[in-house]
Amino acid sequence: MNKVKIGLIGLGTVGSGVVKVLKDYPEVEIKKIAVKNINKKRNIENLDTSILTTDPFEIVNDKDIDIVVEVIGGTTPAFELLKTAINNGKHIVTANKELLAKNGQELFNLANEKNTAILYEAAIAGGIPIIMPIKTTLAGNKINKIEAILNGTTNYILTKMEEDGVSYEEVLKEAQALGYAETDPTGDVEGYDSAYKIATLATIALNRRVDINKIYREGITQISANDMKFAKELGYKIKLIAQALLKENNKVDVRVHPMLVPLKDCLASINGVTNSVVLEGFPVGRVMMAGPGAGEFPTASSVVGDILAIVRSLGAKDILPLMKCHHEINAEQIDIKETENKYYISITAMNTPGVIGCIGEICGKHHISLASVLQKGIEEGNTAQIVIITEKSIEANVLDAIDELKNNKNIVKINNLIRVME
Amino acid sequence: MNKVKIGLIGLGTVGSGVVKVLKDYPEVEIKKIAVKNINKKRNIENLDTSILTTDPFEIVNDKDIDIVVEVIGGTTPAFELLKTAINNGKHIVTANKELLAKNGQELFNLANEKNTAILYEAAIAGGIPIIMPIKTTLAGNKINKIEAILNGTTNYILTKMEEDGVSYEEVLKEAQALGYAETDPTGDVEGYDSAYKIATLATIALNRRVDINKIYREGITQISANDMKFAKELGYKIKLIAQALLKENNKVDVRVHPMLVPLKDCLASINGVTNSVVLEGFPVGRVMMAGPGAGEFPTASSVVGDILAIVRSLGAKDILPLMKCHHEINAEQIDIKETENKYYISITAMNTPGVIGCIGEICGKHHISLASVLQKGIEEGNTAQIVIITEKSIEANVLDAIDELKNNKNIVKINNLIRVME
Repeated sequence: MNKVKIGLIGLGTVGSGVVKVLKDYPEVEIKKIAVKNINKKRNIENLDTSILTTDPFEIVNDKDIDIVVEVIGGTTPAFELLKTAINNGKHIVTANKELLAKNGQELFNLANEKNTAILYEAAIAGGIPIIMPIKTTLAGNKINKIEAILNGTTNYILTKMEEDGVSYEEVLKEAQALGYAETDPTGDVEGYDSAYKIATLATIALNRRVDINKIYREGITQISANDMKFAKELGYKIKLIAQALLKENNKVDVRVHPMLVPLKDCLASINGVTNSVVLEGFPVGRVMMAGPGAGEFPTASSVVGDILAIVRSLGAKDILPLMKCHHEINAEQIDIKETENKYYISITAMNTPGVIGCIGEICGKHHISLASVLQKGIEEGNTAQIVIITEKSIEANVLDAIDELKNNKNIVKINNLIRVME
Repeated sequence: MNKVKIGLIGLGTVGSGVVKVLKDYPEVEIKKIAVKNINKKRNIENLDTSILTTDPFEIVNDKDIDIVVEVIGGTTPAFELLKTAINNGKHIVTANKELLAKNGQELFNLANEKNTAILYEAAIAGGIPIIMPIKTTLAGNKINKIEAILNGTTNYILTKMEEDGVSYEEVLKEAQALGYAETDPTGDVEGYDSAYKIATLATIALNRRVDINKIYREGITQISANDMKFAKELGYKIKLIAQALLKENNKVDVRVHPMLVPLKDCLASINGVTNSVVLEGFPVGRVMMAGPGAGEFPTASSVVGDILAIVRSLGAKDILPLMKCHHEINAEQIDIKETENKYYISITAMNTPGVIGCIGEICGKHHISLASVLQKGIEEGNTAQIVIITEKSIEANVLDAIDELKNNKNIVKINNLIRVME
């Protein structure tokens, strides 16, 4: 049997998993692995160190290599490496969500030109099958909505905050100690990671290229223990939701921000580091996938699935159309200020008669109806904690109302503004 | 463009959905549709009635037709029709779970021989992508466990029983009135439909052919309002679970029966007519899919996905390996009596001192430890309702214990025995 030759760039957590899993597949052979440090001790049985190299360009320029598997992350040098690999006619399997979000268009165009495949199941929602189902089983659908939890670190933090009633800062420290959060957690907690993923997921699902720079993004660092408590009382959980909507006017609304998710919604029950993707479309209706969003083996599962899909297609005259990423149209992305949402607003106000009436009046002036108002007891300094859930309102109006509330003498502080899932 | 020619056998709910969805795909053309009654009024816009025929053999013998889509269900005449179609070199898309469960082996062997594809995403879990993900994204996995809710009718009935606290008979009548249950509901409520589906799903996921005749099957007709109530109190929901396990000794345990599902398990939150499949394997871990298990459009979504997958593969030299159903090995299926489970046992006993001790003693004699015992109050005739949850026990021992309990003078009646999910 003529083995398909793999070049692996990166031998960290995911790369190690790929090596361990691929050893059971005699149809493929890892010919070379690019690493930073050849002498590093690695937790891989019987690793043939003679195939290690510190020069990843050796891999993308190796005439024998059929498939380049890139699991180093980041755009430099990954972008140059993959362009070279594609120009050399190689198929690509990547777990690099940042690269796809920032340079996906150029890579996919080049791959189409060179008739090579770029598969990237592992880049979005780790072990959960989502990209290939969209390209195959769901290919007959017009998908118009994605709601997803795409970042395990933030979901772990929010779950712990909710379960233990503790602050963001406290849980973050614990998550860092456990290795669930990085020393610099910005990429996760500020929503960048989720934004990269939803950019690519929305591109393939909505069938138009989404611009990462036009995605509204807000992280979880402003969520307080109080927000968690109030949300729970109101029948919600707070989750960092990545969302993409294809509107009836064919405009696209893509964003990442925390949301109050109603308990009856299946995303409310996605806890810890689990990821989940909900798709809505016609004719299928609503489908949901959930599973491990990261980790050595779940991610390796998706990388190996992609490798095998390419291996099994190599006999075909052309690499199959299902291997290609549709992106002919650029999405017309709307600004968050134009969107309509329900809102949770947490306010510290003076405990004076009529303060709720005053809040209601200001909201009404800005065309915002209140669905519910909770006064959460008297606090120090004769202030009251007031929590509002609005009806669906235009974001620009809500921001105007918030500005006016901030300047009102009865209002001490706007503690938080969080969107609410319907 | 050379259109791919489809022959559709069946124009009921699913068939109509397929016609409506396919009209947006110019690469395919429905050349003929076999129906029972040509003159029947159908809810399809601009249906060209000249393509209707009452002879389905006209379709499978039509030289122009590339793909035969079979959505009539049952084995006669579907088996003959599909054999003929495959012999004539046609690719098959089918939603026929009964046919696949009973005659799948012969059909897949024939298709492999003739190098044609049989795709059947719609046969299992309706619109949920599950078969193609197993063949592609999850292809690098050894799957060892499936837990699934595969029948919408029974899940609807159980959900309503739980929510409204009413009897099986009452909800069945309502479900029949709403069209969620058939006039003769046997196929659904006795678990046949789920058994057909898990037979085929386990065959592809565990990579060995499962014999439908060796699947243990038990329906939901014995579940009482009391069982629902007690399960709820104990922190469980009752669901009809289709399950397949690949044991460490490579034996296979496949069955369909009601189970008490812990509330924290994601299957507990699958309500109404929704289906769900949970897969466990290495390296992926645990993944879950959920969505509409039936209906005109969700089922059409899967049928059309399969059609497009074939259309897009037609250019390839060979129809792709991923199109084929692995089934080289026959599963060695174990008998339910050999399996180990936790059990819920509902007992009506005389309200005499020491009755619980007596039950505990009989269980102990048969190597059954009790995890919890609840006495549910005194009923008429000085009897008490006692509910037991056992630790993991061998089924044969449990059945022996039940026999002995039945003959004990303190025991009035064994009301139910339901397995408990861990």
